[in-house]
Order: sequence, then C-alpha cells, then structure tokens
Amino acid sequence: MNKVITISREFGSGGREFARRLADSLNIAYYDREIISELAKRTNLTEEYIHKLGEHSPAPLFPITVGHTMSPVTSGLWEQQNALFIEQANLLKELAQKSDCIIVGRCADYCLKEFKPLKIRIYAELDSRIARCKARAPHGESLSDREYKQRINEIDKNRAKYYQFYTGNKWSDPLNYDLCINTTDKDIKQLAAYFAEIFSK
Amino acid sequence: MNKVITISREFGSGGREFARRLADSLNIAYYDREIISELAKRTNLTEEYIHKLGEHSPAPLFPITVGHTMSPVTSGLWEQQNALFIEQANLLKELAQKSDCIIVGRCADYCLKEFKPLKIRIYAELDSRIARCKARAPHGESLSDREYKQRINEIDKNRAKYYQFYTGNKWSDPLNYDLCINTTDKDIKQLAAYFAEIFSK
Repeated sequence: MNKVITISREFGSGGREFARRLADSLNIAYYDREIISELAKRTNLTEEYIHKLGEHSPAPLFPITVGHTMSPVTSGLWEQQNALFIEQANLLKELAQKSDCIIVGRCADYCLKEFKPLKIRIYAELDSRIARCKARAPHGESLSDREYKQRINEIDKNRAKYYQFYTGNKWSDPLNYDLCINTTDKDIKQLAAYFAEIFSK
Repeated sequence: MNKVITISREFGSGGREFARRLADSLNIAYYDREIISELAKRTNLTEEYIHKLGEHSPAPLFPITVGHTMSPVTSGLWEQQNALFIEQANLLKELAQKSDCIIVGRCADYCLKEFKPLKIRIYAELDSRIARCKARAPHGESLSDREYKQRINEIDKNRAKYYQFYTGNKWSDPLNYDLCINTTDKDIKQLAAYFAEIFSK
C-alpha cells in the first residue's frame, strides 16, 4: 500500500508550507490546489467556484423551511455540493492508489481511511497565525490584527463545519489525527526537515 | 541550557512507557515517581500521601462556605497542598538544571517554562486505553470495561483539575503542547524509537 499522509491545518498555521516541504523532502507527490484543477477538468465548474463550494458545508444553504417540516432536502446547490464531495473523494482515492502522496485538507483523513494514512494536524496560537498571515500577505494588502483575526476565525469556522458535515467528527479533535504539531514560533522548514526523517523510515 | 522534555499523558495512553523508553534511547534522566520519593525525603510526608495530594487539586477540598463568603481560605490541607506544589516546582527546576531530562506529569510543562521544554502530550482513544489498562493490570485484578472506563475518567478528571488549578490552562488543550501523539493501536516501543531519532538531533 502506498504511503499516504494527510494534513489538516488551521488557517495561518503554516500547514500548507509544512506539507509542501515534507513532500519535497520525501520526494513524493503533493496535492492541494491541484485537486481543484483536476475537479474543474472533470466537471463543468470553474476552479474558483469549486474552491468556494469546498470551503463551505452544505448545511447553511438549506432553505429555512427544511428544518421545520423535515421534508426531504431538494436543492440544486446542495446536490451539487454533495456530488462534488463524492467526485473529490473518488479523486483522492485515485491519487492515493497511484503513488505515495501528501494531501492537504479536503477531509482526506476521513475519505482515505482504507489507505491507513498518517493523519497530521497542524495548529498554532492565534498571534502566531496572524503574524504568518501578515508575512505572507500579497503586495498591497494591509489589514489590522483584528481583521486578520476575523478572517482566520471565519475560514476555520467554515472548515470545521465542512469537516463536521461530511465526517460527523469535530475538526479540531486530536483523536481524529495521529500527530498534532504546534507551529507557534517554529521554523516550518526546520520542522518539516525533522519530520521528513521519521516519515522516510 | 539542558534539553528538557515534559510528557503530559492521558491515563492508559502508554505515556509513561513512551517517556521511559524515550529517556532510555536518548540516554538522559527520567523522572516520574522518583519525584515523589525525593519530595518525601524533603518533607515529613509519606510517598503515598504525596501521591494522593498530587492527583487532586486543592479546589474540591474548600469548605463550602468559602465560596459563599469569599473569605480568605485557611485550611491546613489546602496550605499543605500548595506548599507541596511549590516544593515540587523547585525540585523540577533543580532537576532541569542538573542535566538533560524527561519529566512525566506534575505540570512540568508550566513549571519549567524558563527551560523552554519540548512539551509532549500523549493521548489515545478510550477503547485503546482500556485495552492497555487490562494488559498491564496487576495479577488478580479483574475489572469490567465499564469499571476501567470509570477509573480512567476519574483519574483524568482529577489530573485535569489539578493542572487547571495550578496553571490556569486546560489540560487537554493542544496549544499547551508542542506535539500531541495519538497512541491508539500503536506500538509504544516503536513510537518512542521513531521520536528518539528526531529529538536526538
């Protein structure tokens, strides 16, 4: 069976950089936004639209009446989101079957259960995450700490809802992962190099 | 500065074995119950009594009236527990100053902040912890799964209260640790060997 590593990451924790560096060191495939590109090819949806659907769970899109009447849910958008999740899960399995790989986000730890992935969670203190967001801000972006905090909380809230909706589990619960790594004040490059040594065995 | 590793562990997670094996592999000092023996030497208390005090936070021992009257707390036991905690914290600092070491429990991550320890948390799913307790049960002990569950929950509840009382932090919060390791269905010997390789660098 191929070696599959899944990375769940808090926004601003450096999880994506950790994953990329780990994949480089281990010389194995790395999938993150590549998954969106492939899904766009397989569907008639744009990458931007797929990205947007993937950051939100279908739940908040229910018409309010559904909750009251308990009627079967029929919403074009809801069905589209679920169909996309299934398509994505199939794609993840294809990738895991193809070669050793690292996959970021996308409930991969849950979808790839049968591959017994090494499930990693990357997290950090809020101040450290704000500092990372600032350091990586695109040219011209100038947000206050409060605005970064709002953005971080908003994105993570949506990721948690998405994860909870499709897996039934709490996104931040350490029991969903094999290893949780705190990147507060850590050098991601060095951290990835350390772990690459373990995982290469 | 010496290399200091602190291990916080859920009951039944194999944290103590992990710590001991790690210390053996790294060839550094290991302190767990040794701390109680040393405290007994320094005080007039028995090891058994110190162990008991160390597993409970002073809070539940307050006379009920204290909460209502907000009067200053004066309880012999309460003072004894706090004095013991301070004595223990001083001892931990002495040990950390003496040589590289691994310390299990005792809010060491908090007490040894100035030594910038590598703070590890060892945890596992409840079923796995029950199985570990069974496998290590003393000869003649025969508890049901339910009884083991009760014992695990009780011990961890007390550890969490103790930690919260002295540090003001939530015992299970990953942000208090650098690395959280899930030992569910894992071989502790192998796991310790893996991590010894990283930590020896």
